[in-house]
Formats: sequence, C-alpha cells, structure tokens
Amino acid sequence: MTEPSSVAKTGSAPDPTDFANYFCTYGFLYHQKDMLEDHKRTGAYYQAVMSNKRQFAGKVVLDVGTGSGILAIFAAKAGARKVYAVEATGIAASARKLIEHNKLSYVIEVIQGTIESIDIPEKVDIIISEWMGYFLLRESMLDSVLVARDKFLKPGGALYPSHASMYLAPIQSPNSQQRMSEFHGSMEGWADFLQDMKNFYQVDLDVLSDSYRQEQREYYLSTSQWTDTHPQQLLGPASCFKRYDLHTLTLEELKEPMKEDFIMHVTDGGPVDAFCGFFDVEFKGSSENPADVEVKLTTAPDPTGATHWGQQTFYISPPIDCAPSDHLKCAIGVSRRQDNHRLLRVKVAAKVEGNSMFAAQSQSPRMLEYNID
Amino acid sequence: MTEPSSVAKTGSAPDPTDFANYFCTYGFLYHQKDMLEDHKRTGAYYQAVMSNKRQFAGKVVLDVGTGSGILAIFAAKAGARKVYAVEATGIAASARKLIEHNKLSYVIEVIQGTIESIDIPEKVDIIISEWMGYFLLRESMLDSVLVARDKFLKPGGALYPSHASMYLAPIQSPNSQQRMSEFHGSMEGWADFLQDMKNFYQVDLDVLSDSYRQEQREYYLSTSQWTDTHPQQLLGPASCFKRYDLHTLTLEELKEPMKEDFIMHVTDGGPVDAFCGFFDVEFKGSSENPADVEVKLTTAPDPTGATHWGQQTFYISPPIDCAPSDHLKCAIGVSRRQDNHRLLRVKVAAKVEGNSMFAAQSQSPRMLEYNID
Ligand SMILES: Nc1ncnc2c1ncn2[C@@H]1O[C@H](CSCC[C@H](N)C(=O)O)[C@@H](O)[C@H]1O
Ligand SMILES: Nc1ncnc2c1ncn2[C@@H]1O[C@H](CSCC[C@H](N)C(=O)O)[C@@H](O)[C@H]1O
Repeated sequence: MTEPSSVAKTGSAPDPTDFANYFCTYGFLYHQKDMLEDHKRTGAYYQAVMSNKRQFAGKVVLDVGTGSGILAIFAAKAGARKVYAVEATGIAASARKLIEHNKLSYVIEVIQGTIESIDIPEKVDIIISEWMGYFLLRESMLDSVLVARDKFLKPGGALYPSHASMYLAPIQSPNSQQRMSEFHGSMEGWADFLQDMKNFYQVDLDVLSDSYRQEQREYYLSTSQWTDTHPQQLLGPASCFKRYDLHTLTLEELKEPMKEDFIMHVTDGGPVDAFCGFFDVEFKGSSENPADVEVKLTTAPDPTGATHWGQQTFYISPPIDCAPSDHLKCAIGVSRRQDNHRLLRVKVAAKVEGNSMFAAQSQSPRMLEYNID
Repeated sequence: MTEPSSVAKTGSAPDPTDFANYFCTYGFLYHQKDMLEDHKRTGAYYQAVMSNKRQFAGKVVLDVGTGSGILAIFAAKAGARKVYAVEATGIAASARKLIEHNKLSYVIEVIQGTIESIDIPEKVDIIISEWMGYFLLRESMLDSVLVARDKFLKPGGALYPSHASMYLAPIQSPNSQQRMSEFHGSMEGWADFLQDMKNFYQVDLDVLSDSYRQEQREYYLSTSQWTDTHPQQLLGPASCFKRYDLHTLTLEELKEPMKEDFIMHVTDGGPVDAFCGFFDVEFKGSSENPADVEVKLTTAPDPTGATHWGQQTFYISPPIDCAPSDHLKCAIGVSRRQDNHRLLRVKVAAKVEGNSMFAAQSQSPRMLEYNID
C-alpha cells in the first residue's frame, strides 16, 4: 500500500476562459521550443542552477509551470533530492517523456494541473519558475508563483529568481513616425470606405468616424509594440522604476495597480520618440540560503539581439522635445486590464524639467496611455 | 405605463469563453469594416433585399447578428414596418448610432444580447443574417439562425439567404510544395535545436521529435489555408457535395457530423496538389413567399479576386496522380472540433477511378485529414 502522504495530488486544468485567453499556446512544443532556444533566457537559468549546485544538492524543489520540464531537469542535474514539476497544460505529457528518457523520473515528479489546484506532500526548499511576461508583468503568472511560495515554501527557502526590476528608457525610434503614418493611412482608407458605402448603398457611416478613429488610435498609437531595440537608440540611461523582492512581495501588493514616480535622464536630448520598457530578474537565493554565484537575466537593449521578450516600445507622437541637460519627471501607473487580468494598461505622465526652453514651455505633464496586448 | 408585450427584451452577453474564442473580434469597427467593404458580399445582400422590396414592404424583419446594422438598414430602406436588429457584442452601440443618424430608429430596434438569450414581442416575416464562416460552417453561427427561426419566424416566413451549398474542386497549387518545404525546414530547425540543447545544457530532447513532427505536420500540412485561388488553377469542375435548405434543416441535423459521398472530375488530369473548398448562398425566399429576383452570393475562385472568405485550400502531399479521363471517388466528413465547437475537422477519402494506370494503381483511397482553424 502506498503511503498517501508521499504522493502528490493531481490537479485540475485551467478554467476554459483562461485556457482560451492564455494557456492554449503553452500546450504546443513549438512555443516551448521558442522559449528554450532563447539561450540568453535558458542559459541564465542553467547558470543560476549549475553555478549553485551546493544550494540544490539534496534539496526539495518545486518548478512552477515546468513546460517542457527543462528547469526541473536542471535542478535534478544539480543534485536535488526531489523535484515537483507542475504544469497546467497538456505539455506535461512531453515533460514526463523527456524526464523518463533522461532517466530522471526517480527524482522528478510531473504533476499536471494548475499550481492553484494541486497539492504536494511536503514543503520545498527552493521554488524555481520562469514566469516573466512582456514588460515583466504581462500574463500575471507571478501571482501563481506567490501562491506556490505561500503554500509550499519552507521558511528561509529560496525563490529562483529572487528579484525582479522594471525599467523605462527614452529612445529615438523611426517606427514612431511610421506608426503615425499607418494611422493616417488607415483614416484615409476609412474616408474612401465612407464614400463607397454612400455610393453603393446610400448609407452614410460618417457618424461612426469618431469611434473608428478612436479604435485605430488605440491600435496604432496606444498599443505598445515588441521591438528589438538597439542600444544606439537610447537617448539616456534606463531608469529602474520598480524592484520586487519576491520573498517578501505579497499577492495583495502585486495585484494592486502600481504607481511610481521617477526621474528619466535624457542625456543626449530629445526629441524622445518613444519609451522603451524592459526588465531583469536576479538569482540571489534567499537571505537564509544565498546563492554562491549570483546570476542576472536582463532583457535590456543588446547589440547582439533581444531575448524572446524583446523590449516593449511605447510610442510618443508628437515626440517630447528636450535639451541634453533636461530630464523628465515621470509618473508611471501599471494596472491589470478589466477585460483580461493577464493584460496590462500603462499610463505615463512626463514633464520636461531643466533649464532649456523646452522645460520652460512644459507647463503640465504629457499624459500617455497604452495597452500591452 | 408601457405595454410590455410591445417591448423587446434585452439579452445577455456571450459566455466568457465563447467571447474569448469567437465574439471578441466582432466588437471592433475594424472587423465590421472588413466585411462591409467586401462588396461582393455586401452587394449581394443589398441586391437580395432591394430587388425584392415587395417582399420586405410592411413586413417585420429580424436581423440575426446585425453587427454595424447594415442589413437591418437595407431591410428598413426596402420598406419593412419593423426590424429587430440583434447583436451580441458591444458593436451594437455603433449600430444604434448609425441607425439614429440615418433616421431609421422609428423602424429599427437594436437589441444587444445573444439571439439565444433575447426575446422579441412578435413573430417575424423574414429573418436576414450573414452567418457564413470559412468553408461555410466555421463559426457554427448557422446554429443561432436556426434557433431564431424556430423561436421567431412565422409559418411560411422567409430566410435570407434561404439555401447554402458547399463545393470541393481539384486544383494545382504551387503553395502545396512550398508548405512541404516549410515543413521540412521546420524539422531541420528542430535538428539544430536538439544539437544546441545537447551542447549547451546536456539535455537530449530527441524523445520529443515524434511529437514535434506530428505538431508541425498538423500545422503545415493538415491545416487548411485561406487562399485567393485563380480559376486557372482548377483541374476540373467543382463538385457540390452538400446543399442545405435553411427552411427545413434542423439544428440536430446541422450539429451531427456530415458525411457525404461524391464524384470529383479531374478534367485536366493531375497531379492534384490540393482541394479547394468554397460555398455559395442563395436568396430565394420561402416557398410561400418566394423572392421576385433570386440572388446568389458565391465564393468560388474568381479572376477579379476573392471575397473576404477566399477559398479554403486543403493541400495534398504527395499529390494525387491521375489522367484527364479519370475521376476521384470521394467521401467527405465535416465535424465540429471537440476543443472548440466553432472550428472544424475535415476528412476526405479519395480514390482514383478510370482507365488510366493511376486508377489501376489506386487500390485503396487516400485518407486525408485537416483542421480548419
Ligand atoms: N498557474 C499555473 N499552474 C501551472 N502551470 C502554469 C501556471 N501558469 C502558467 N503555467 C505554465 O507555466 C509555463 C510558463 S513558460 C516556462 C516553461 C519552462 N519552465 C521553461 O522555462 O522553459 C507554461 O508552460 C504554462 O502553461
Ligand atoms: N448568437 C448570436 N447572437 C447575436 N449576435 C451574434 C450571434 N452570433 C454571432 N453574432 C454576431 O453576428 C455578426 C456576424 S458578422 C455580420 C454582421 C452584419 N450583419 C453584416 O452583414 O455586416 C457579428 O457581429 C457577431 O457578433
């Protein structure tokens, strides 16, 4: 007879709406491959684990969202005594195959289900997870890691990664003008369309023009874009506007809309065409169980090319003019969208300060709003 | 006090999963515009209504899924006494604006909600709806039209359109070879990826190769594609394998998997690289209230360019060889997908028959399977 307390409890699948909106793509090997072959990403996790074998040896580890099983495998190779590898989607079957084939089933137990619904028979020393979305917070998967921490992490246990930081930098971007032209092109298309509808069917749709303009403006000008930004485009250093210590951050804090004030230096002067948003995470272990070697995974603009997260570019039209000596006094708000809690709404207020005429003319801050889709 | 029986009942929104999977895009003017400016489509509805003013004059009409409100407006302009325009998504607000601006609010009542959840205070003479999806049946919106018919249509009332037919034709398609190359390219990429994963992290993912190949095969070779097929590509006439009379079709029949046998003539001979699937709908009115002018909207290959539905192309690799005198004995199955009832699974069995050596060699039928995504 199996001792029940040593057996992990199988969980349930995501609810169908969340599956349709979010989890569905993770069920494909194709998508898991996209992440795995981002070697800046996978390599950073590999280093974080393999350079800290002492921390993993003989330990119990939980991998939240194991996907292909890769991080669980790293942990097992680093000497973990037991790894619980939890995955919501059907890709769990592939993880199981991979782990068996690599002869690690005696260490790693794959559990299919959401972390919120599963149970494991013991507390763990380390939680490892790759939960980061665009602009760090898109996907809201960090919620699930904090749930896991509160349910399963031993006091003094460590989170891999342990810290996460968010940045915004002023950039010069040719795309900004292009987006503006695309927006104008789309409104010209609308004008032709109105004419055709009148000619062909005697229906005047002009009353919808404002709604259409608003919809297209949201799409072209108020939706951030994935970009591989070159460091040459930076007009000043990136400002860190938020840093999370994942050991102490509460789920309540995380769910609240974020609101931060910060200064952005525009060393090279404007015009500032766009803000470039990105993040990094650090693997430092916990204060009780610090890492021997600290590893950092950054998604900052990189001349050798972006990670699969790229950067999020928030276009500014018209651009913000400022002189090399000026800086921007900024306030940023990041909140979850009401239509889909895994997507984000970002608001930035920016006011030019300094001794230039641009600063003198900047009476009230520019108010900018964006969706991250 | 308002007389309750004269007031339509507001309905409820689609359930969130169906919204996430299906309805969401229809809430955008951008998408409604895409449909409106398909003038083969919109023009056919316009003709079907305006050439049959006698049928609409003084009548009560129901527009199932009014979107921008366009078909309701046509019906009102044709002289309908009252039009109920039902729409599930927020685009209903635009329809209302458009109708007010075109001074037709006294005839058209916009009701936001799914047709399944709303109520109207009287039976109607005509139901008009543009419910067709790719390969006719994708989206499964015809279900909602039949629900409306059974709930709200007077005996003898007419459906616009009244009939729908589905076709499959043998074609020669350069894309077929290209899809095959893309599939091979993707598998070469996988081989490189395996090597990198071994070199960088000492993990052997080869055990997942079969699953990956299967996934990529599904994607590249077993998923139909939107195409604008030129009539020159046809290797023989299109075969009509299904015709629906929408007045008599039951919801049960529609929901059952379809299974039809038919002959496909390959007048020009093979190799047959792909099957090209499309549909048409006819506006004939009902037998009690026939149209004066019958209109047909076809999505067949057209040298002047496709409707927004294009055609669905089902690639065949390797192609089916046959001689000009041969024909294909075919069986087609079309069923709803289990993961999403608005998407389709199509199976085709095809056997070469005739006097050629290809026919002699074709012992058992080729079995082909596709998703329509
Ligand atoms: N609440 C939850 N419970 C279980 N799995 C989850 C989850 N939220 C997200 N996931 C899974 O977490 C994975 C994130 S992607 C990372 C995969 C893998 N750890 C790697 O590093 O390559 C996805 O496979 C997703 O399906
Ligand atoms: N069950 C249902 N109840 C109400 N509206 C529905 C529905 N199923 C689909 N729809 C709506 O039907 C529309 C189909 S598109 C056609 C729009 C418009 N009649 C035109 O011809 O241009 C979409 O706007 C969709 O949101």
